[in-house]
Amino acid sequence: MQDMSNNAVIVRKLMQSSEGYPKVGENIDFVRRPYDASQLQLSDNFPVLAKVLYISVDPFLKLRLIENLDADEEVTKPFEEGKPLSCYAVVTVIDSLSEKWKKGDRLFSFANWEEYTLLSTQTLESSCLITDKDDSMLKDYLGVLGMAGHTAYIGLKHVGHPKANETVLVSSACGAVGMMAGQLAKSFGCYVVGSAGSDEKVEFLKNELHFDDAFNYKKENYSDALKRTCPKGIDVYFDNVGGELLDTVFLHANLYARIIYCGALSQYCAKEPYGLKNTMQMITKCIRFEGFSYYYYYSLYWDECCSTIKKLLSEQKLHFKLDMKVGLEQTPEAFTSMLQGKNFGKVIVQVAQD
Amino acid sequence: MQDMSNNAVIVRKLMQSSEGYPKVGENIDFVRRPYDASQLQLSDNFPVLAKVLYISVDPFLKLRLIENLDADEEVTKPFEEGKPLSCYAVVTVIDSLSEKWKKGDRLFSFANWEEYTLLSTQTLESSCLITDKDDSMLKDYLGVLGMAGHTAYIGLKHVGHPKANETVLVSSACGAVGMMAGQLAKSFGCYVVGSAGSDEKVEFLKNELHFDDAFNYKKENYSDALKRTCPKGIDVYFDNVGGELLDTVFLHANLYARIIYCGALSQYCAKEPYGLKNTMQMITKCIRFEGFSYYYYYSLYWDECCSTIKKLLSEQKLHFKLDMKVGLEQTPEAFTSMLQGKNFGKVIVQVAQD
Repeated sequence: MQDMSNNAVIVRKLMQSSEGYPKVGENIDFVRRPYDASQLQLSDNFPVLAKVLYISVDPFLKLRLIENLDADEEVTKPFEEGKPLSCYAVVTVIDSLSEKWKKGDRLFSFANWEEYTLLSTQTLESSCLITDKDDSMLKDYLGVLGMAGHTAYIGLKHVGHPKANETVLVSSACGAVGMMAGQLAKSFGCYVVGSAGSDEKVEFLKNELHFDDAFNYKKENYSDALKRTCPKGIDVYFDNVGGELLDTVFLHANLYARIIYCGALSQYCAKEPYGLKNTMQMITKCIRFEGFSYYYYYSLYWDECCSTIKKLLSEQKLHFKLDMKVGLEQTPEAFTSMLQGKNFGKVIVQVAQD
Repeated sequence: MQDMSNNAVIVRKLMQSSEGYPKVGENIDFVRRPYDASQLQLSDNFPVLAKVLYISVDPFLKLRLIENLDADEEVTKPFEEGKPLSCYAVVTVIDSLSEKWKKGDRLFSFANWEEYTLLSTQTLESSCLITDKDDSMLKDYLGVLGMAGHTAYIGLKHVGHPKANETVLVSSACGAVGMMAGQLAKSFGCYVVGSAGSDEKVEFLKNELHFDDAFNYKKENYSDALKRTCPKGIDVYFDNVGGELLDTVFLHANLYARIIYCGALSQYCAKEPYGLKNTMQMITKCIRFEGFSYYYYYSLYWDECCSTIKKLLSEQKLHFKLDMKVGLEQTPEAFTSMLQGKNFGKVIVQVAQD
């Protein structure tokens, strides 16, 4: 074991406000560390030692890099300076005191951004077993079969309740969750419109993912774009960006519209939060606007999500785009680039092969 | 008929912005008119002629006095200048071509603010028959048994889904809807907290309506007040005011909190709409924030509401405060006073005795 490493991506210094992007080296950093068995001892509270294979790099982590955030849940509280970041991951169990999880099991689990990590009993409560034998599918559990796919499925189906022929708008529609939400909405028979930040992405949505329409939010007034692309108004809005687009959607929403508030990418690096001014439309139109955090739902719907998405995959009804980096040292840069919208597809990092 | 009047309360001039209160004589006015049978002819589209007995005077009407409001539903579009305002009312059918509604029927219905009025087929679709024989109860159909009681019941039960021991916050808790929402929440076994605009109202909530706690929002910082009165956080917020208090509630809401967005009294006369800045809390806490307009729900739940509320009344579990004016000519002043919070209880006007 003496030559092994346990490199990590750690928080150097939390940010003082939400404004701007975390800086590599200043706020987050890749650090080389030797494998230290004394730090990785199993115990009642940490009964599983795992090797991290793939990690998911997600926008919401930005919120946990800000100091004094008024949040105390495990999934939302600020990261600790000097410690690794953590997120959804695919791991292999290499040692275990647990009756439930055995050596060799592959898990979808929350895990630290380090090569080897201990999993707590609390974390393990919501970890899910990956039963596929095909190793090439493991990475998909951070993509089409993972948080992105499941978030889209659970949010759309169990929060948004779309009906056939309704108009479903998806923001950040080329993002990991957005592209899944749009395609799932198509599979439910809806009229699907996406917003994205480049003409290339708009074409991808229309031509590759078969969205009914799409627009480049950087080039067109939001209200004009929504009138043009959603002529019958909006019944369901799967929102990944928040801010001004969300505020404009209230004006174009139909009676009984549902807004799935899944992310607020436009706000994560904003100087000040955007104030939503059009929410009174919610009263007159009986709009349901519902926040949705994957963290609290995924273990409940794991089997339903996996089987539904696998079926659609087998019918060739889903396309998905992974933006995979290889090597943990790529993670800090991949994270900050993603926050600036430079990725095209779901960002994951391969930390190790099995 | 020649000596009969058909006086009305009409819109003189729509307001140019939401700022400020409508002026009596300038924006709305009481006008004396003779009864003109030629204007009150039954037809296929207007098959019922009714005498108006009581009218409901509600804050949301302010929104319909503003020019160019982006709304086209019957219940939300701007009133027409020169024409009467309209709202929920109790009326007696005095002539009818309809098979369903007979002369002498008492209806809870949308109606113009005039002594005699025609009811359209569209209006009649959601009118409800009042079956009580006791005339002294008619006014209650604009109060405890009417929009206020039903709005509170439907909003709380079917939108808010409160569970016993949860903390329910009610704003404008001495208003017509608020006092009902709070008492209904008590009847569901919740811990109930109210906000109101005077110490007298706060005492009334605690001593007469048996709220568990209450605060005067004019005297205390919102965040301090919510921490003090809702020490376990907020599970359900029945919101009648919108604006800054709503924005503060997001910070103090619990996981899976439900916000019933029933009214936005703080916004109806504001210069600019308040921008809600804390809605990202909805994502991390899976908060459901749902707009609710009585107009779209009441005929669906009419029987359930009436029977539930009558049962609670018979058990002496509900107190209600009507602020009744007598005479249609009182209406303009009653309306503008209410918008300024000068009323204490549900404002209605008795237009005629049967």
